[in-house]
Amino acid sequence: MSKRVYQLILDLPEMIEKAIHLTQSALKGKQGLWQRFQPQNLIISGMGGSGIGGEILKDLANKYSPVPVIPSHDYTIPNLTGKRSLFLAVSYSGNTEETISAYRQAKERKALICVITSGGELKKMAEAEDDLLILIPPGLPPRQALGFLLTPLLVLSSQKKLLPFTISVIRKSAIKLKGWLTECSKIAQSLAKSFYQKIPYILAGSSLYTACAYRWKCQLNENSKTLAFFNTLPEENHNEIEGIGRPKFMRNFLSIVVLFDPTAEERIKLRIRLLPTLLRGQFFSFQEVAPLGANDLERILSLLLIGDLTSYYLGRKYKKDIEKIERIEQLKALLGELTSGKKEL
Amino acid sequence: MSKRVYQLILDLPEMIEKAIHLTQSALKGKQGLWQRFQPQNLIISGMGGSGIGGEILKDLANKYSPVPVIPSHDYTIPNLTGKRSLFLAVSYSGNTEETISAYRQAKERKALICVITSGGELKKMAEAEDDLLILIPPGLPPRQALGFLLTPLLVLSSQKKLLPFTISVIRKSAIKLKGWLTECSKIAQSLAKSFYQKIPYILAGSSLYTACAYRWKCQLNENSKTLAFFNTLPEENHNEIEGIGRPKFMRNFLSIVVLFDPTAEERIKLRIRLLPTLLRGQFFSFQEVAPLGANDLERILSLLLIGDLTSYYLGRKYKKDIEKIERIEQLKALLGELTSGKKEL
Repeated sequence: MSKRVYQLILDLPEMIEKAIHLTQSALKGKQGLWQRFQPQNLIISGMGGSGIGGEILKDLANKYSPVPVIPSHDYTIPNLTGKRSLFLAVSYSGNTEETISAYRQAKERKALICVITSGGELKKMAEAEDDLLILIPPGLPPRQALGFLLTPLLVLSSQKKLLPFTISVIRKSAIKLKGWLTECSKIAQSLAKSFYQKIPYILAGSSLYTACAYRWKCQLNENSKTLAFFNTLPEENHNEIEGIGRPKFMRNFLSIVVLFDPTAEERIKLRIRLLPTLLRGQFFSFQEVAPLGANDLERILSLLLIGDLTSYYLGRKYKKDIEKIERIEQLKALLGELTSGKKEL
Repeated sequence: MSKRVYQLILDLPEMIEKAIHLTQSALKGKQGLWQRFQPQNLIISGMGGSGIGGEILKDLANKYSPVPVIPSHDYTIPNLTGKRSLFLAVSYSGNTEETISAYRQAKERKALICVITSGGELKKMAEAEDDLLILIPPGLPPRQALGFLLTPLLVLSSQKKLLPFTISVIRKSAIKLKGWLTECSKIAQSLAKSFYQKIPYILAGSSLYTACAYRWKCQLNENSKTLAFFNTLPEENHNEIEGIGRPKFMRNFLSIVVLFDPTAEERIKLRIRLLPTLLRGQFFSFQEVAPLGANDLERILSLLLIGDLTSYYLGRKYKKDIEKIERIEQLKALLGELTSGKKEL
């Protein structure tokens, strides 16, 4: 099922366009309160591939939003959740136990709730409770439904004026993204080569790209089946830099990639230029990846695309079934059996 | 200079007690506004060892606080910073360029500012601007001044009723911590053995311990001079688990330690019990570390102590100068020379 993942990665632009439409339709059915409500904070609950959208929104919000955007990946919710919170429960399957638990708690706290899912328990609960329900197509591996899971967050943030990206800007990004597929593929193939039989070390070239670096790491974990590091500049320079290539047996095993942010502080760009010399002899390779695009949203989307493609090409090199995530599925099955009483520890 | 680090680690309880006093004294000089001000949000700017306190406060706030606590490790500040923000600029030296830049921006946004430092530029600026200045003793490696850097955040949060820990609870934690030094040392020595010539993989047993796991990683980087991974449960189970022990050459190199949170969801505890079997053959060792203490604050402090001691013992095994952080210092020197025009790239 590796080919399907490849096709889904390339479908990112179409997913974004479809998800804009789905979100707008869902909002049309919810006038009144949903139009008036100005959230004091945004809480985005979700795990793994369903949770990464919240992290991406957090990075953008850090730069642009007047209110806090707080991603949460847990059974519990941030204590500040309340009546003036907009709570987004994101679970592709609709059956993620952490997100269901978080949803229930947010409901008790009387937060305004939006559910983004393809079905499952969360769909049922959202319908019963008359929450804003953004129903996305089922049957995909959650991590490759990113376009469907992230776009509603962008559209809602746009509507609430938390981000400067209008619907038409989001749509335009998707259209541009289509034109970049070939270039992104080329970059990704070359990166995959440098990651093969090494440990990828992804360094966000600014706080704006922290979630991108995290997404790369997670996709390398799940699609390529490899360990990977991620960190953010300038914070990395204050501690992890001392661990690079250490202990000695790791000396030739780190393949470092910096996600270069053209809008970053000049001092950060200077740091990036100094790093290869400072760390000479401690890594296998050191590369910068420059995103495509004319604004932060476009650049982030291009990085997500390159990261996904890289994880695909690397998985192919390792001859892995890219779609299959055996351990994650096995753990879920075990947890399920223990709940239903079919098994005991 | 390894012995000094060891002594400073053991001094954590005394540092906490002294820092309570320093913070209370500083607050006494600032009645009026500082008494009345109820922040809409708390922003804590700091890098590396000066930034970890903000992350620890964030974890506690997530569980207890009615307002958001936002750590920031950057030249820039979160966009939401404004008149109703309490902005804490934390820099041990007072000369961290990121924190100075962030301080200036927070000043422009008219946030209420508290500076925690031992001197440098930030001390001068805080004095000139009449900010709340918490002046801590100079001359220590910043990462080993944790007691001085973290405690003011706890005291201020207590005063603003963001956390349930009163001053006397904080003081009591410090006293109890003294009684745990021997036990923590024993745990740390055993952990250091299992980390030697392996890659430590620190797993927070709940979101409450994310900053603890991050602190362990950073201390292992800086004191022991080794790479290390960190992650948080349950999020780790949704992606990174697929990378454990992969590619094959990493199979016997991960030394996994779970920081067990007795207050965590039962489902997380179940996950921890399932992991060793699920990942059989993919790691070198799998251990749980149980914190000491009767409340979340005490438990977090005990974990910080165990982590610091572990990083010390591991550094000794590697025969490293534990205090010296050559690369970090070299990078700072290079950046300084480039600023002053002494050098050009």
